[in-house]
Amino acid sequence: MTLAPKPKSKAQLSSITERMQALVADDLAAVERLLATRAASPVAVIPDLSGYIVSAGGKRLRPMITLIAAHAVGKANAATHALAAAVEFIHTATLLHDDVVDESDLRRGKPAAKAIWGNKAAILVGDFLFARAFNLLVEANSLDILNRLATASTVIAEGEVRQLAAMATRDLPTEEYLAIVEAKTGALFEAAAETGAMSAGGEEYSDALATYGKNLGLAFQIIDDALDYGGTTSVIGKSVGDDFREGKITLPVIIARRRGSDEDRAFWDRALNPETQEDSDLAHAVHLIRATGAAEATVQEAEAYAALAKGALRTLPASTYRDALEDLADFCVSRAY
Amino acid sequence: MTLAPKPKSKAQLSSITERMQALVADDLAAVERLLATRAASPVAVIPDLSGYIVSAGGKRLRPMITLIAAHAVGKANAATHALAAAVEFIHTATLLHDDVVDESDLRRGKPAAKAIWGNKAAILVGDFLFARAFNLLVEANSLDILNRLATASTVIAEGEVRQLAAMATRDLPTEEYLAIVEAKTGALFEAAAETGAMSAGGEEYSDALATYGKNLGLAFQIIDDALDYGGTTSVIGKSVGDDFREGKITLPVIIARRRGSDEDRAFWDRALNPETQEDSDLAHAVHLIRATGAAEATVQEAEAYAALAKGALRTLPASTYRDALEDLADFCVSRAY
Repeated sequence: MTLAPKPKSKAQLSSITERMQALVADDLAAVERLLATRAASPVAVIPDLSGYIVSAGGKRLRPMITLIAAHAVGKANAATHALAAAVEFIHTATLLHDDVVDESDLRRGKPAAKAIWGNKAAILVGDFLFARAFNLLVEANSLDILNRLATASTVIAEGEVRQLAAMATRDLPTEEYLAIVEAKTGALFEAAAETGAMSAGGEEYSDALATYGKNLGLAFQIIDDALDYGGTTSVIGKSVGDDFREGKITLPVIIARRRGSDEDRAFWDRALNPETQEDSDLAHAVHLIRATGAAEATVQEAEAYAALAKGALRTLPASTYRDALEDLADFCVSRAY
Repeated sequence: MTLAPKPKSKAQLSSITERMQALVADDLAAVERLLATRAASPVAVIPDLSGYIVSAGGKRLRPMITLIAAHAVGKANAATHALAAAVEFIHTATLLHDDVVDESDLRRGKPAAKAIWGNKAAILVGDFLFARAFNLLVEANSLDILNRLATASTVIAEGEVRQLAAMATRDLPTEEYLAIVEAKTGALFEAAAETGAMSAGGEEYSDALATYGKNLGLAFQIIDDALDYGGTTSVIGKSVGDDFREGKITLPVIIARRRGSDEDRAFWDRALNPETQEDSDLAHAVHLIRATGAAEATVQEAEAYAALAKGALRTLPASTYRDALEDLADFCVSRAY
């Protein structure tokens, strides 16, 4: 597949993220200060809970996209920092609500905030951070930027509602899966990159960066869905199986189900129903996804979106920032190897 | 009590709301069109669920405050309409999340949306409407107005979190109760009135209208809390007892507890714990609230806030709109009789 990026080694991957962080170190520090100060509230639960999730191993992928996109087409500034912090708060709010909706007690192997503070606090602190994001967006000083993020937030909610409905659909069409992923993950990546350009005076590149962000988000989420079954490696990490336990229909399952026998399909139908799922089912699910080649096919789909993301960067002026955006696309898919 | 408004008859009350609706009929029709069209989504659950709650007997009190405040100090316009619709969407989003947080299956005697569509959909459609409110606020075309509503939304979430913590506090100080009410209800009434003025070119009156709105919101919520125990009438309506069943500490309880015997306090401590509450407890709670005069004392507290609300209107130019805002304050407290 000529579009696919070459897999990078673990050392190369970690050097990519380090290089990106170094590239925008001062901006990231400003964003971190905003994240810390703008979650403040006299109601102690709010900074406690939001501090837990905001600082919980977040890669700051979305704010980094905003910052690097801004530098790639103009000059990142105080508006860009406020915008990048708002994007992270919106992401955090959706994580808090997702954990309640998904009934998951773990997030990346750590207890979810709702498992510590309860569903009620998780819902309300999510609301707080979402509102605070719009305070920050006011500082970005552009109704156009603010409108884009409000629209992205409606699309994320739509995607989550569609995902709820999809849980009951055993033979989910790939198109519906991709539409859900584009809404629940692609929309915020898209807006993060597009508005980064807008905030830096690079409006003529905002469409290209929107296309970059949307396809990067698709690649990222599809890889995430592959990693939930261990990716293409044989090691099953501690954050494997969340989607499976919740009965979420993702691309590895769709492909394995389609390529499997009638017996396999009967297995998927029973095992993906949380009421009839058994403890030993996850290992068999991982086996079927490997045996049918569904893991590789899923990664290839993500690689195709990463290639589209990189293609959208072609019109941008050459710079270390454009290179970093390209590397970021490689980074997103190479996590699966 | 000289500050207290004279109680009005039921016929007078209903003529107040009719008169107010007639006064801003064209504006209200424009707001209704926005509420209907802006909840649209290709994901059917979203308009179904939001249509159910948006049209479920809503009095449109908050958008009406925005519209009448605008007319009282300037000219209501398309920005005012978008703003008023946004205020109602924010209110609706908080209702959806409140019902999940409060674990209540009924809202004003009808099944809560979460009881029909489930908690997950209620959380996500709340998020959708909240985001859509900010799309509408972009149409109000003022970052200052938008910032006020974003801040009000953070304050509402803070108030809800404080209310959660207060559930475990049997001898809740009146000051903490009032701070919660000011945050969870006063903040949106305040912003609705203040930004109504801002949207209509009446900035010089926005502080007065903010004071009006905040005190009106306090009066309204305190009366609501009295009505949950039947107000000062002996008829127990179908929406009585929600707060009691959830173990919420409200002003009638605080006063009845303080004025009661040790035995009464032991009753409140047991009965307000949902785990030890018995079916027959509500009738005894209503009895204690009447017998100790807590119902009247609660209504008097609301009347004092209504008087403060009306006092804040004094600097406004005389008009039928200013009169309507005064009548609205009377309406809010007279519901308890």
